[in-house]
Amino acid sequence: MTDLLGRPHHDGSPLYLSDEAPHLGSTVTVRVRTSADDPVTRAWVRTTYDAEPTYHQMAREGDAGWWSGGLPVHNPVTHYRFLIEREDGSQTWLGAAGEVGYDGSDTFDFKVVAYAPAPDWARDGVVYQIFPDRFARSAHAGDRETPAWAVPADWDDTVVYEGSDPRTPLQFFGGDLDGIVDHLDHLADTGADIVYTTPVFPGESNHRYNASTFDHVDPLLGGDKAYQRLSSAVHDRGWRLLGDLTSNHTGDTHEWFQRAREGGETRSWYYFHDDLRYESWMGHHTLPKLNHTSDELRRVMIEGPDSVVGRWLRPPYDVDGWRIDVANMTGRLGHIDVNHDVARIIRATAAEQREETFVVGEHNHDASSDIDGDGWHGTMNYSGFSWPVWSWLRAEETDARPFGRPVAVPRRPGPLVRQSLDEWRARYGWRATTQSWNILSSHDSARIRTLVVDAGVHRVAAGLQFTLPGVPMLFAGDELGLEGVNGEDGRRPMPWDHREAWDSATLATYGSLAALRRRHVALRRGGLRWAYVDDDSLVYLREHPDETILVAARRAPGPAIDLDLPTGELLLSTTGDERGFAGAVPAADAPAFALWRLA
Amino acid sequence: MTDLLGRPHHDGSPLYLSDEAPHLGSTVTVRVRTSADDPVTRAWVRTTYDAEPTYHQMAREGDAGWWSGGLPVHNPVTHYRFLIEREDGSQTWLGAAGEVGYDGSDTFDFKVVAYAPAPDWARDGVVYQIFPDRFARSAHAGDRETPAWAVPADWDDTVVYEGSDPRTPLQFFGGDLDGIVDHLDHLADTGADIVYTTPVFPGESNHRYNASTFDHVDPLLGGDKAYQRLSSAVHDRGWRLLGDLTSNHTGDTHEWFQRAREGGETRSWYYFHDDLRYESWMGHHTLPKLNHTSDELRRVMIEGPDSVVGRWLRPPYDVDGWRIDVANMTGRLGHIDVNHDVARIIRATAAEQREETFVVGEHNHDASSDIDGDGWHGTMNYSGFSWPVWSWLRAEETDARPFGRPVAVPRRPGPLVRQSLDEWRARYGWRATTQSWNILSSHDSARIRTLVVDAGVHRVAAGLQFTLPGVPMLFAGDELGLEGVNGEDGRRPMPWDHREAWDSATLATYGSLAALRRRHVALRRGGLRWAYVDDDSLVYLREHPDETILVAARRAPGPAIDLDLPTGELLLSTTGDERGFAGAVPAADAPAFALWRLA
Repeated sequence: MTDLLGRPHHDGSPLYLSDEAPHLGSTVTVRVRTSADDPVTRAWVRTTYDAEPTYHQMAREGDAGWWSGGLPVHNPVTHYRFLIEREDGSQTWLGAAGEVGYDGSDTFDFKVVAYAPAPDWARDGVVYQIFPDRFARSAHAGDRETPAWAVPADWDDTVVYEGSDPRTPLQFFGGDLDGIVDHLDHLADTGADIVYTTPVFPGESNHRYNASTFDHVDPLLGGDKAYQRLSSAVHDRGWRLLGDLTSNHTGDTHEWFQRAREGGETRSWYYFHDDLRYESWMGHHTLPKLNHTSDELRRVMIEGPDSVVGRWLRPPYDVDGWRIDVANMTGRLGHIDVNHDVARIIRATAAEQREETFVVGEHNHDASSDIDGDGWHGTMNYSGFSWPVWSWLRAEETDARPFGRPVAVPRRPGPLVRQSLDEWRARYGWRATTQSWNILSSHDSARIRTLVVDAGVHRVAAGLQFTLPGVPMLFAGDELGLEGVNGEDGRRPMPWDHREAWDSATLATYGSLAALRRRHVALRRGGLRWAYVDDDSLVYLREHPDETILVAARRAPGPAIDLDLPTGELLLSTTGDERGFAGAVPAADAPAFALWRLA
Repeated sequence: MTDLLGRPHHDGSPLYLSDEAPHLGSTVTVRVRTSADDPVTRAWVRTTYDAEPTYHQMAREGDAGWWSGGLPVHNPVTHYRFLIEREDGSQTWLGAAGEVGYDGSDTFDFKVVAYAPAPDWARDGVVYQIFPDRFARSAHAGDRETPAWAVPADWDDTVVYEGSDPRTPLQFFGGDLDGIVDHLDHLADTGADIVYTTPVFPGESNHRYNASTFDHVDPLLGGDKAYQRLSSAVHDRGWRLLGDLTSNHTGDTHEWFQRAREGGETRSWYYFHDDLRYESWMGHHTLPKLNHTSDELRRVMIEGPDSVVGRWLRPPYDVDGWRIDVANMTGRLGHIDVNHDVARIIRATAAEQREETFVVGEHNHDASSDIDGDGWHGTMNYSGFSWPVWSWLRAEETDARPFGRPVAVPRRPGPLVRQSLDEWRARYGWRATTQSWNILSSHDSARIRTLVVDAGVHRVAAGLQFTLPGVPMLFAGDELGLEGVNGEDGRRPMPWDHREAWDSATLATYGSLAALRRRHVALRRGGLRWAYVDDDSLVYLREHPDETILVAARRAPGPAIDLDLPTGELLLSTTGDERGFAGAVPAADAPAFALWRLA
């Protein structure tokens, strides 16, 4: 597969698309790169105009193999692909998943989107995810009384994580918001600049995804005042803050649900079958499902300045955006599907309340129909990043599974992993992919360290997280090498008092990767071309008009890889190999990750 | 590629899916066939439940390689695919486009649909398309005065077909509806039993896609009375009749548009920019685009018993359903997209007015998001049938192009053609594919004979049309070998008085194919498994619980093809080769099509 760089290429990055957020009705320039010796005779951009295919002939640019043409942006999400004719009369289609030699569907068309993109901070930053109960206790934490529902735990206690154990959601470590404020310097060490906390609404569980109100912050976390302190401290650093909202459900202790149960006016905000039975998230009766066909619910929860979504975007909370929990199921129930309405309204409400807001929807599978339009800006990209990377890097001895799946992800060779990454990026579209989160672990998944076992492989994973298109989202503790076989187990308290157990090399790697991503526009906004792929190697270019960066990831030792590319200066190596790039990715005797800025 | 039959398989046919139209909330049984020696250890059905992936373990059925499991039908269109684990620990996904070894998107998931399917007649029948001006003149035709707009032609005149020639839409041959009644015996010879005429509303063109009213039938065709005679004659034979409606636009001579232009109450039924400028189909000002965001237009045109759609389903017109012109663009304009509303309303109106109605939407490209739900039952399947078959069978010397494309379709080898057929069937879903039309030519395309040149290859094409999943739609004249380099050229008058020029062998082949399709449930409702594919051969099985039929199509001479299958009795051969199937598709010294019923 050494001819990868010779193949025709296009993506949504600045080298190939003149405007990633054009006005409806404008015309953008799209470019295709072929190799200089590719015998292309003619090329067309094919778009669909109100779903009707139309063709626009492209022109050759000089003799280096580039073609360009005008693409009218007729629909808010305008689909396009390229028809390429060669000297032998053959015709191929270049789509977002690659070049094919037959007439296929629009499935993998490129997309240019006229809706406003996510703000720069949300695309260029690094997200740090905090599960408040397990992050840090402030000096005030000890003053608070443990609530009746909770099973109190000491900070060094072992986490109970079996789904069948009733203590799992109740074990209470008592982290709070001021504890986060106390440790912002640590976040700075990782290079993060976007703080995302899982829910802070009161709820009778350690995860708080079962809110009992959306009106104020849980007093166990320090209440509204503490949230205000956190918000100020984050913003004082020039960072951003994201809230977490369960638009799909509330807790059964929620004030709305309590009134609904008693036959109150909020009853139509849920799906009651009779006095006892109602719809709930995946059958969990403690999580009654919200009914977004109710206009009243929409007004109270998601629509307009006084809704939950709207209010929190202003002081004292002042969040910069929302992560929406279970965004995939929100508004969907059997024959009912108002999901897109919910997404569109939340995004519109956010945009009205605050400049530069960002809304990301949790989706643990295929968000393709939900994220390229005027709904969620992006998704937690488990499918398009986590599972492919896991399947490449997983250790043989691990049992960790992608959540929801009945079996461990198998260990797969590089070419299949590349295919998976490519298919998802193609489905989501370039812009939505770059607005989505690259995740190695989260509060819902096993920890990456448990999955890969070896610290060196963990650093290869981190390298991919920061250099493949998408926004790195780091689950607090990954940078120290915390472990966990599933989401619950991974919610281990941060070992502030056990620095001897920290994996300092990995922490430093995260910090370096974040700094490189901030410094190099090619890593944030550059295109992606594969340079070389074999079972154990993924080598790619991030290319931008300002610079080109070569990235090489190896999951195992391997020989040098010759590549016909300019020389390059080393930016980072996880193995201590200090060689620049001089026509070959150096041989490696261990898992390795390195990147070079090419001349 | 001789191991095709050993691969895991599932499709939406009765061998694999226990109920193709289940009630929402029920559980259907889905089955996967693997080969007996495939080392499968476990298998799961993976479905999405309100967009959340869930897994259901399957059980092995005996030792012949079959697996089965229960699939809850939770959403009206329920997606599913299969996760297959093998002895070596590998995992693959079986989706509608085949088996893949990586974690991919839901793009090619199987679909089971809880909405009512198309009626049996629309799935089991054979459609005969008539362009009235060119089909036949009745004895009354000569009595009518040629209208002022028309350029009169004699029946044997050459058709003017250049898009740049103003006579192209005006040349008037004067075929009429009683002319169709006169020739229903000819339709019977082809085996057709569904009559579809292009529009019969008055319009100042020979194609009548620019209607000036939807209130009555064009007097030039004989008017309402003649339509009633046609409808009765068709129904007297136990056949069905389809109308053709331009829901996307009217003519600029339409009574609605005339009133709109004058500032009348119908103005909001169109998209006026100012007094002179308005939206129209692809910029053709004679075809002003209808605005389906207008509730009033919906009521008059598509919704309810008194709408155009509703009225015509009752006497005197009594059509059995509608072919909707430009269905892809209907209701779509820039940022506006109410296409699905239009489709859903037309189908619902039809279903309310008449039992067993059928609505098929014209789409010249990707209808996948429009046809698997409660909108169009199916589409004119140019993309999923016509272009792949054309690309396999086109003669080197032809210039015929898929309409709308700037270049001729290239000649492609069997494996790529198979991939194209598979991808489209996967995107549309099994049921929507079997409800869509297999088209070799239409009033919009070149004629198949012009494309393939050779009569023997034409008969191979006809064989594919009648034996691949989907409903054959025969454009009047194809059965006689009429030619035409594009849609307009192909609209040649039927040569009733030149029987010496008819290709009788091809006519007989159509009749035989239609009879076989009627007699053999496997050809109408059986699954599809590929048995063997090479550049010049497509060999497949149509399998049903009642019977299995082996189909072999060759575009060129070739050697015998050994297949490990039971013996079979010959049902049809286009080359006169009378051999049964005895372990091999016989060698052929010419393009050939044959099918056998296996023991």
